[in-house]
Amino acid sequence: MSLVVMKFGGTSVANIERIRNVAKRCAKVAEQGHEVVVIVSAMSGETNKLLALAHEAGGEIPDPREMDALAATGEQVTAALTAMALQQAGKPARSLLGHQVRVLTDNAFTKARIRTIDGTKIGETVKSGQICVIAGFQGVDDHGNITTLGRGGSDTSAVAIAAAINADVCEIYTDVDGVYTTDPNICPLARKIKHISYEEMLELASLGAKVLQIRSVEIAMKYGVPVHVRSSFSDAEGTIVTSEDRFSPSEMERMTVAGVAYDKNEAKLTLRDVQDQPGVVAKIFGALAEKNISVDMIIQNVATGGAAATDVTFTVTKADVARAKSVIAEIGKIVGMKELVVDDQVVKVSIVGLGMRSHAGIAAKMFELLAGEGINIQAISTSEIKVSCLIAAKYTELAVRALHTGFGLDRKDVKEEGA
Amino acid sequence: MSLVVMKFGGTSVANIERIRNVAKRCAKVAEQGHEVVVIVSAMSGETNKLLALAHEAGGEIPDPREMDALAATGEQVTAALTAMALQQAGKPARSLLGHQVRVLTDNAFTKARIRTIDGTKIGETVKSGQICVIAGFQGVDDHGNITTLGRGGSDTSAVAIAAAINADVCEIYTDVDGVYTTDPNICPLARKIKHISYEEMLELASLGAKVLQIRSVEIAMKYGVPVHVRSSFSDAEGTIVTSEDRFSPSEMERMTVAGVAYDKNEAKLTLRDVQDQPGVVAKIFGALAEKNISVDMIIQNVATGGAAATDVTFTVTKADVARAKSVIAEIGKIVGMKELVVDDQVVKVSIVGLGMRSHAGIAAKMFELLAGEGINIQAISTSEIKVSCLIAAKYTELAVRALHTGFGLDRKDVKEEGA
Repeated sequence: MSLVVMKFGGTSVANIERIRNVAKRCAKVAEQGHEVVVIVSAMSGETNKLLALAHEAGGEIPDPREMDALAATGEQVTAALTAMALQQAGKPARSLLGHQVRVLTDNAFTKARIRTIDGTKIGETVKSGQICVIAGFQGVDDHGNITTLGRGGSDTSAVAIAAAINADVCEIYTDVDGVYTTDPNICPLARKIKHISYEEMLELASLGAKVLQIRSVEIAMKYGVPVHVRSSFSDAEGTIVTSEDRFSPSEMERMTVAGVAYDKNEAKLTLRDVQDQPGVVAKIFGALAEKNISVDMIIQNVATGGAAATDVTFTVTKADVARAKSVIAEIGKIVGMKELVVDDQVVKVSIVGLGMRSHAGIAAKMFELLAGEGINIQAISTSEIKVSCLIAAKYTELAVRALHTGFGLDRKDVKEEGA
Repeated sequence: MSLVVMKFGGTSVANIERIRNVAKRCAKVAEQGHEVVVIVSAMSGETNKLLALAHEAGGEIPDPREMDALAATGEQVTAALTAMALQQAGKPARSLLGHQVRVLTDNAFTKARIRTIDGTKIGETVKSGQICVIAGFQGVDDHGNITTLGRGGSDTSAVAIAAAINADVCEIYTDVDGVYTTDPNICPLARKIKHISYEEMLELASLGAKVLQIRSVEIAMKYGVPVHVRSSFSDAEGTIVTSEDRFSPSEMERMTVAGVAYDKNEAKLTLRDVQDQPGVVAKIFGALAEKNISVDMIIQNVATGGAAATDVTFTVTKADVARAKSVIAEIGKIVGMKELVVDDQVVKVSIVGLGMRSHAGIAAKMFELLAGEGINIQAISTSEIKVSCLIAAKYTELAVRALHTGFGLDRKDVKEEGA
């Protein structure tokens, strides 16, 4: 007998018919003798509807505390309806809200972070033979105020609850059937990944794979919760995310590169001809940090303007460009900048894989593959298990497909295990 | 400075525009220097929408615990939106839910009764200069389960909270502008009552005036909370409901009859020729009581069938007729009943007034007025402040108008105080 956490996203509970399917699915797992805890999101569309009401009543920025009291009703509705549907399917069930479980969070309304989760009530519920249905996304602060974990927070709820009750697995049911080696929309030969490590998943998620919330992967990694990402519309196995030590030896010898990601959400800023003196770069990035603008890639070139000046290039998210420009307008005067050039027609393509750690020459191979397609690399960044290159956005598809094929990830290649 | 509880029903908060009006209204009272506590219902239509979802997911009788967790979201949404609208109107405000206030109830889900209300959090909120917006209709049981007080429970929440925080008045805002001497739809000369006692209000409400929930009037009476029933769409004074001792001397000398009510919701059952022996009547009404069927009026006639037999007539609500018939079918055999006659074309007209206690002949005058119109009285019941007559339903309007005029309640008569 296992203790299984099953989480269903908004599209999986979008209407009563789907909620009934969710109930059937959970009932089936219970009938196999497992203890089942279900985490549900709001019915898709509900959260946006509530947000619209909030803006109508509360203006552009409604009070965050009230925003959370309002938004939390979305998951409350689904939890109650799911418990009812389970009972109709002949399974005893009861719903629990964030404050009933006690999902204790800080008081950062609309983006609260979980502090502790009390597993007692959940444990009592499943031990008494009931399926426990929990409203995701929500918690309660020290003072009994309702809080929410921010968009996609139900994944976080699910993994954190799975950790708190020491569940054997946290199954994340969604509208895709797993994590792919790259975006199937631009690479038809993309393959579903059977088994991936937390570290790889984090790099892929943060690079735009968007299947699992980064926060939930971080929590899963911290507490060693195995996560199974799978489709709520089929019985097929999805992608299992675990720590590396759960990989079988044959899996460990798998592909050096697990996936290819791309991120169109960055823009490149170049400060031309700033003074080439100690402290100048620190001034620039210090000023950006002060305004809470995250800088991703950084390159310092030898400048065209002569020995006394240099160019500084970096990337920020497109959302931060306007703010970054106003910071640079100020600091540019101090460091003698001649010109600021902004280029938002760029994309960051990345290869991710645990195997890189033990395989030399992976980065070099990536540069070769891009060069082979005549793609110029504008910036490079690397981590232990990732290499990223900034290139012109128009090459996105070409680059992703070249890397996917070049690193042997294409679907026809079925010899490989685990990737 | 007063402490004012203001309660708004579903039609008063039916959309954001109306919620904004509610906020303006509350803000105005706060600006006059009063401390304000607002109780809100679900936006009209919401509760029915949730009920429909519940039946779809949970069948004919969804689990009552889950039903309450679901239904409570309706008021939660309004409370958060109202707090936001107040903030937009420049008034600090915060919402509180049943479990946050702590409205402690029993665990009779869907029809819970309030046990205690902790006024601490409400007190802290208003003392800190904020308007406190509370979700009506909901509470929490000993185990932290969400409960609801049943339809119209927000009136009960409002009055009970007003009692708990020792408010100076509980204002019930609704879509009518007060309590009338009778139904204005059938008597155009009906007048708005300025001031009425709890006892009279109870008799009028239970007879179908439907402006205030009976339970809320009972609580108001028990704790001496002055209630002001008024329109949320106008500034006119409505009807004030207080204890008798708050009436001014001139008011005490007002009309002996405060209002005329009618109730079409009863049916008359006559058991013909049952044995005229001790214990027979006890058997009949014992059997009905056992099935939880409330009997209202009872008449025992001298029977047409001879000295050994009698007729027994009583009224029950129309909803109970089917069940009553099956009980009588059984018990009828034992008591030798010859025939059961059901008449649902009846109406109960009542006159209500504190003044009756000190005025003789009020009942006689009622019978005369009805006789004057050629209306036959089928049954009579009386209490200290009420006389009711059962008559054929076709005479409803005629009887109500005759009594209204006969007891001097018509609008043109403006000399009278307080009625």
